[in-house]
Amino acid sequence: MNGDKEKLLSVPASPNGHRAIEHAGASAASASKTVLAYERRIARLILDALGAPPVRLVLWDGWATGGEPGDAIATATIGDRWALYKLALNPELQFGELVTQGRVRVDGDLARFLETVNRAKAEAGFQYLPQKVLGWLYRPRSNALGKSRQNIYQHYDIGNEFYELWLDREMVYTCAYFSSPELDLERAQLAKMDHVCRKASLKPGDTVVEAGCGWGALARHMARYYGVRVKAYNISHEQVQYARERARREGLDNRVEYVEGDYREIRGRFDAFVSVGMLEHVGFENFPKLASVIQRSLKPNGRGLIHSIGRDKPALMNPWIERRIFPGAYPPSLSEMLTLFEPSGFSVLDVENLRLHYAKTLRHWLQRYENAVDQVNEMFGGEFVRTWRLYLAGSIAAFASGDLQLFQVTFARHGCNQVPWTRQYLYPERTTD
Amino acid sequence: MNGDKEKLLSVPASPNGHRAIEHAGASAASASKTVLAYERRIARLILDALGAPPVRLVLWDGWATGGEPGDAIATATIGDRWALYKLALNPELQFGELVTQGRVRVDGDLARFLETVNRAKAEAGFQYLPQKVLGWLYRPRSNALGKSRQNIYQHYDIGNEFYELWLDREMVYTCAYFSSPELDLERAQLAKMDHVCRKASLKPGDTVVEAGCGWGALARHMARYYGVRVKAYNISHEQVQYARERARREGLDNRVEYVEGDYREIRGRFDAFVSVGMLEHVGFENFPKLASVIQRSLKPNGRGLIHSIGRDKPALMNPWIERRIFPGAYPPSLSEMLTLFEPSGFSVLDVENLRLHYAKTLRHWLQRYENAVDQVNEMFGGEFVRTWRLYLAGSIAAFASGDLQLFQVTFARHGCNQVPWTRQYLYPERTTD
Repeated sequence: MNGDKEKLLSVPASPNGHRAIEHAGASAASASKTVLAYERRIARLILDALGAPPVRLVLWDGWATGGEPGDAIATATIGDRWALYKLALNPELQFGELVTQGRVRVDGDLARFLETVNRAKAEAGFQYLPQKVLGWLYRPRSNALGKSRQNIYQHYDIGNEFYELWLDREMVYTCAYFSSPELDLERAQLAKMDHVCRKASLKPGDTVVEAGCGWGALARHMARYYGVRVKAYNISHEQVQYARERARREGLDNRVEYVEGDYREIRGRFDAFVSVGMLEHVGFENFPKLASVIQRSLKPNGRGLIHSIGRDKPALMNPWIERRIFPGAYPPSLSEMLTLFEPSGFSVLDVENLRLHYAKTLRHWLQRYENAVDQVNEMFGGEFVRTWRLYLAGSIAAFASGDLQLFQVTFARHGCNQVPWTRQYLYPERTTD
Repeated sequence: MNGDKEKLLSVPASPNGHRAIEHAGASAASASKTVLAYERRIARLILDALGAPPVRLVLWDGWATGGEPGDAIATATIGDRWALYKLALNPELQFGELVTQGRVRVDGDLARFLETVNRAKAEAGFQYLPQKVLGWLYRPRSNALGKSRQNIYQHYDIGNEFYELWLDREMVYTCAYFSSPELDLERAQLAKMDHVCRKASLKPGDTVVEAGCGWGALARHMARYYGVRVKAYNISHEQVQYARERARREGLDNRVEYVEGDYREIRGRFDAFVSVGMLEHVGFENFPKLASVIQRSLKPNGRGLIHSIGRDKPALMNPWIERRIFPGAYPPSLSEMLTLFEPSGFSVLDVENLRLHYAKTLRHWLQRYENAVDQVNEMFGGEFVRTWRLYLAGSIAAFASGDLQLFQVTFARHGCNQVPWTRQYLYPERTTD
């Protein structure tokens, strides 16, 4: 660690080991500027509007509101006057912007801080602008064919090396399934893949199409352990290259075909349609298109499984996440997901909500990310470090507070009776322990 | 069996033991009337419109279409000219009317006949009138507070004695759960009650409210085996009388309170809200009212379970069933059920589709009904016998063909983290075998 990085990262560790966000000298720059009375008022109004969460807000001259350091879950320090104004005008977007710029700092457990704020907001029914205005301001970016590639490029083509620093060995970048809570991340991702394969009732010789395959782990898992042939689609060039190379190395390339292509380009008919962690990127306006793809690619007695981040009611993506992390993303509510199935002649067989498993998965990721943070800083610099830390901690908070859900939906065609009799088969003696 | 009954019931038994519908002398009445050429054309058109199911249609002079007796799944005989015209104009309603009047007779397995027709109709996209016109003609009867009592009276207050003839010992009149397919009906109803209690995560000392409790079996089961206190609502006077008497006899009346009242009259706050087989009778227009009842009656960390007949897309109830069997009934699609949860701050945790379990439950009921058919005839006469036979067989067909679904939906409040970690706990060593 050289001196520059040392300075950048020298922040107090919170009791449970997460580091707080770095503070890039903001307080020094504004220390001379006295806080005015109405600015204190604004600070108090912000906390009140958020439902008065038990957190401490400190302004640039050291003035504080919202509880004593000992009582508060965490402390947010606003480093300058304009940061306060921006936050007051548009907290949903500006909190993230200001934290990554180092103008707002959180000391303490960032994820717990954010979860506390989420819960207080939900309790108070907080919304800084009407949903209609938000919808106009923060409409998710288009996912037309060319746009999707650009949106996905921004997130997934950062470089496989970066994700290798903190994902599991199989490079699974979706919610794990902790069939028992003490599983480690590696095992929980294997358990998730088994859970998905069982839900899709895979049997040797089946053909499977996977829409949005990431680095290809699930496709390899299905081919290796379930004796099926998989055609897996992904529009991220980097991920497809990685997946192909790894399948070749592991001797699976005769049973898994990775196609650099969009779900709209899926061709053929299959025994199972599986999609894990893609629907969030499809955009609600494209659901009818995806439904018609499933419709044409599933055999009469085929099974389908869609695993997606969702909501317990329709709402827009957090604007900061949509801008900085996942352009074009929209996590649908379950009723919105059902527009894929009900008008297209599919029956929903099973829905499982794994929200708390995603919070746990993300805690593992954040821990691993923090362990590798020096390398991340070396690769991309401090602003990137803060952006991704906030994204991971914010996602923990969203799943832990219920602002985000994780739905696995299993379906078959209307009237198909070749479906499992009960769900007992999903719960064998725990094989993944 | 006296001579009169003998004649009424002397119909050929189908290979699997179900008797065909009785034919009350219709063919004799119209035998002299020759079938005209355009009437044959109408008969063929009816079959074509239904998607040409492999069934045989015979007219009153013996002329037949739709396959040879050996190939066809069953044979429907239309006994007179006006029966044909009525059927052509409005098959959804008139088939039931004519069968119960004895003017249309089905020889062979009635449930299989109806399932075959349902599947052909779905395949052909059959609809004899646009949904809009149907909606206007066959709007389900109102379920305003007074109306509900009248609607429920028509079905549930026929007399406990009648239902005792063919239900299980506990008098459970909802879909059973065959945790393993070889279970008998008695055990499958116990297994269903256990499944529901587990899904509601009941623990000793909990308080439970049950909306729509039938003859009170589930409430007694919860109190007896799960150590909870139950307040159970039902608007059927006959059922509540039976439930109270039985709870007293079984020494459970200190832990189960049966209230003769509507779900809208529920008062108090509870650890669990459970409703099995009531939502179908609520009517879609009353869902917001039910949602507000759940909202006010569930404690912050409470769990909810709703078990209901549903659809895999919104559609009206079959008009004959709505007129003759279940006035006011409307089985909602899953997306319609979600209007109970998404706008009211509930998160769906789990959805299970038990449609094939209902087909199996109904096969047991029909078998028991046929075994007791002489008594039913003695009690209510031949038209009633035919009505209820058609209702039970038609329900088998609807669940087997996917026209009806059975959803169990488990839910909790937004952000509630006191929820089971996985669903493994629903699948212990099979205790019900």
